Amino acid sequence: MTSERDPIREAHRQWVAHGWGAAADGMAMVTSVVRVQQLLLERIDAVLRPLGLTFARYEVLRLLSFSSAGAMPMTRMGSLLQVHPTSVTSAVDRLETQGHVVRSRRDDDRRVVLATITPSGRAVVEDATQGLNTQVFERHGLSSSDLAELTRLLGALRATGGDHVD
Amino acid sequence: MTSERDPIREAHRQWVAHGWGAAADGMAMVTSVVRVQQLLLERIDAVLRPLGLTFARYEVLRLLSFSSAGAMPMTRMGSLLQVHPTSVTSAVDRLETQGHVVRSRRDDDRRVVLATITPSGRAVVEDATQGLNTQVFERHGLSSSDLAELTRLLGALRATGGDHVD
Repeated sequence: MTSERDPIREAHRQWVAHGWGAAADGMAMVTSVVRVQQLLLERIDAVLRPLGLTFARYEVLRLLSFSSAGAMPMTRMGSLLQVHPTSVTSAVDRLETQGHVVRSRRDDDRRVVLATITPSGRAVVEDATQGLNTQVFERHGLSSSDLAELTRLLGALRATGGDHVD
Repeated sequence: MTSERDPIREAHRQWVAHGWGAAADGMAMVTSVVRVQQLLLERIDAVLRPLGLTFARYEVLRLLSFSSAGAMPMTRMGSLLQVHPTSVTSAVDRLETQGHVVRSRRDDDRRVVLATITPSGRAVVEDATQGLNTQVFERHGLSSSDLAELTRLLGALRATGGDHVD
């Protein structure tokens, strides 16, 4: 599925040729983000699929495992993960079926639905993190200065999109 | 859905605290790519949804509109778009239903299935491109040097992933 030419460079050439030069560099950047996300997700899925996880479910488990009580209100997770509440519900539904999370009501406020990570959830998220660290996060192929610069520039795009970026 | 803290910075802090410092910077970069792709796709979809298109279908129409005859073998499109042949089939199925593409067999080799863009396909892809140029590709908020640097660094990741990058 790899082309003999750089398809993004080729699209950039077409954009300029069609008189859309003002948008050509932005098109190349946006298309590059989409392509890199696709490549990274393939590698992430190769680690997570054998463990029965998706990246969305991994992020839910990771967040719960970091919390002091191993539990968090569903609404709070949506906010921290920057995803729609329905995405959290869907991920927790599946994780509950898998036995990695249980739902409960908070004792002091029965309206609040908590998700709590189980021992099997803790075990699988540790395996997943070890796999992602060694197979994906430590294998980017960039120098440390390029890596920092890339994260900084992506942070500028996140801030433009309304994210709080430190 | 925006958090009061930077969730990627917070995850980086947790990674270091858990002894995964070697993977922390890579985790922050990968998570940033995933988040930026999500933000960009929301803006892309806001342009394309009213036109009845997804980004995958837009890319198929864009590619056909750039080809000299407005037609291309299905297999060639998968290679140029760097997606699985089944993704091209699915996109072309839907575009054919919408009247934007027609399938045919090549006269000199009946085994080859061609996709050809129709006049309505040409009209919608021009509208979509104008919208994407003004609403997304020209509105990234980066300086031109930062934009070039970002595309260069993403290109390095694409090359690591096996893409041909010029």
